[in-house]
Amino acid sequence: MDEKIAPHKGDFLSDEQAMKLAIQEAYKGAPFVSPNPLVGCVILDENSKFLSSGYHHKFGEPHAEVDAYTKLSDQELHNAQVFVTLEPCAHEGKTPSCAKALAKMPLKRVIFGLEDPNPLVAGQGAQIIRETGISCLEYDGELKSDLEDTCEVFLKNFREKKTFVAAKVAQSLDGQIALANGESKWITSEGSREFVHELRAWYDAVIVGRKTIETDNPSLNVRHPEIQKENYLIVIDPQGKILNSKKSYKFLEIHKKEKVIFAVQKDVTTDYKTLKFTDLDDLLNQLWNLKIKSVFVEGGARTYSGFLTAGLIDRLHVFTAPVIIGSGDGLSWSEYFSIPALEHKLVLKNVKHKTFSPDQYLTGRLMRD
Amino acid sequence: MDEKIAPHKGDFLSDEQAMKLAIQEAYKGAPFVSPNPLVGCVILDENSKFLSSGYHHKFGEPHAEVDAYTKLSDQELHNAQVFVTLEPCAHEGKTPSCAKALAKMPLKRVIFGLEDPNPLVAGQGAQIIRETGISCLEYDGELKSDLEDTCEVFLKNFREKKTFVAAKVAQSLDGQIALANGESKWITSEGSREFVHELRAWYDAVIVGRKTIETDNPSLNVRHPEIQKENYLIVIDPQGKILNSKKSYKFLEIHKKEKVIFAVQKDVTTDYKTLKFTDLDDLLNQLWNLKIKSVFVEGGARTYSGFLTAGLIDRLHVFTAPVIIGSGDGLSWSEYFSIPALEHKLVLKNVKHKTFSPDQYLTGRLMRD
Repeated sequence: MDEKIAPHKGDFLSDEQAMKLAIQEAYKGAPFVSPNPLVGCVILDENSKFLSSGYHHKFGEPHAEVDAYTKLSDQELHNAQVFVTLEPCAHEGKTPSCAKALAKMPLKRVIFGLEDPNPLVAGQGAQIIRETGISCLEYDGELKSDLEDTCEVFLKNFREKKTFVAAKVAQSLDGQIALANGESKWITSEGSREFVHELRAWYDAVIVGRKTIETDNPSLNVRHPEIQKENYLIVIDPQGKILNSKKSYKFLEIHKKEKVIFAVQKDVTTDYKTLKFTDLDDLLNQLWNLKIKSVFVEGGARTYSGFLTAGLIDRLHVFTAPVIIGSGDGLSWSEYFSIPALEHKLVLKNVKHKTFSPDQYLTGRLMRD
Repeated sequence: MDEKIAPHKGDFLSDEQAMKLAIQEAYKGAPFVSPNPLVGCVILDENSKFLSSGYHHKFGEPHAEVDAYTKLSDQELHNAQVFVTLEPCAHEGKTPSCAKALAKMPLKRVIFGLEDPNPLVAGQGAQIIRETGISCLEYDGELKSDLEDTCEVFLKNFREKKTFVAAKVAQSLDGQIALANGESKWITSEGSREFVHELRAWYDAVIVGRKTIETDNPSLNVRHPEIQKENYLIVIDPQGKILNSKKSYKFLEIHKKEKVIFAVQKDVTTDYKTLKFTDLDDLLNQLWNLKIKSVFVEGGARTYSGFLTAGLIDRLHVFTAPVIIGSGDGLSWSEYFSIPALEHKLVLKNVKHKTFSPDQYLTGRLMRD
């Protein structure tokens, strides 16, 4: 990711910088807002001097606009400019309508990043503001893709009525995640691992394959100094091997029973919730019906490859450690995925980079070339 | 890599910043100085205000110190501080002794990054300067590893009497360089490819395996807007298949005959220079005898894996494109390299990152963990 914007009150910001800051703010709510979208808001005075910023902290709590404007006096809001990543809401849900609140203020203008796809809003939020004579425009600049990224889960949920799928890979420089003999251990840095725990919290559920449980015995909970969250855990266990095993697995001790779901392909007798699925698409549809709006795929090779092959991954988060394991006796995360010709390669779009020294981190939206 | 330092005359620089700038300067000579080391020099006034910088541009041309101090007046050099990445030379070769030249100046102090391993210098350069009463110290801070990196070829050549081996990999996000069916094409960005051409010029010779020639028919020359250089090209062709082929290969048209060397393992009749070798270590020793001080390995999978297995790679340059090819039908650059247990993984040290959007670039020194 590129450099952070961190203005002091009174600093001049261009429209682009204000929207960029609003995007930065939006991400602060990532672990806590589901099923709401991430939203950030920045308020400048009439001369584009920075006044305040805010974001939607948590589901059920005030929206980003409220978080930003309650920091300001009536005097400061006079002729102010509001930048918000998503169209202010027209409807009243757990909180009052932001559009109606903004419409009552003596603002110069409101710029919103994306139209809200929620049919309860979709243009109506902007309309409410415009009717009072305040200029209210949809942003149309270089940050449009970044704006889509901020609320991609929400957009997919609303546009396609489907669960959003993110996948995380922690690999060696040569694309390996383990040795073929099953030996596997953290190869990425502490900074990478802390961010993985944050990412787990960004999504409603973690998905993991049976073999990863058997070989790594992972906890798969959110262990982050600043985030407390209990995520759902979906274990893909087609033959019910884990369920029928006498072994004690860490994740069963750590996660509350009602947060663990086994995805199986044969009848299994168990106290745990099970979903009988035909393929991954079917599994995702069943998760959607359970109101699981987003999942975070954490391996292993068969699970990653299955999602890749089915074309179901929306976003990929890849952490690469500067070590070489060798494909000879290694296990690649894309081991069971293949394409017939290079023109069919999968391409990540709107790619962002970051360093968790000495690791590289890359994320992007996934689509066929 | 982190941010560049670009001071104006009169800007204050700390000792660390001055040395960092000297390192930056050193790299500017990378395509042209062999067999000399890369050297950079920065001169500050007595109050640590920036005066000038310079570097060793090209073999046979003035050294970095000269490049920096000839930009200054005698008045400016009064009480000046000289930061140079390598000990000033004591001996006179193609150019006069820098140590002797500095010793005649009214300097406050000289800080050099590394002691020159050349026995003709090794401490004697510093001694010459000290004898005149000028303080002359070896740098001992956080940039020590970066200083070693700047002249790693020269250091290996002098310390071990061996050819330095760098390797470049251009891979997909999942570690693939081609499809197993042989299909292969540039997957990295234009920015990455331009830097690859610069890197070719950093080293004396490119090494490539037979199969890469057959499948890709590459040119393997230096095509860079600012660099003109004819490198050696070593083709590893154990059975003489390329040599005996009737096919026309691009590299044979593009490279001068005397710059192409075939490494073979059986007798072959040809006008080209051949080296009969037993293993890669033996080949490198023969290249050392030909005064080839550094090589740049450019694939393919068997060649990379051979060098990895033999533990012969000193530096790795990896360009990763945000695309997924799949290990299923893909060819990994480490396809024929394996380790018995993760504790034997290869680890890159003093890793640096850069982005050639949308690609990631990573480089580091290679060693066993």
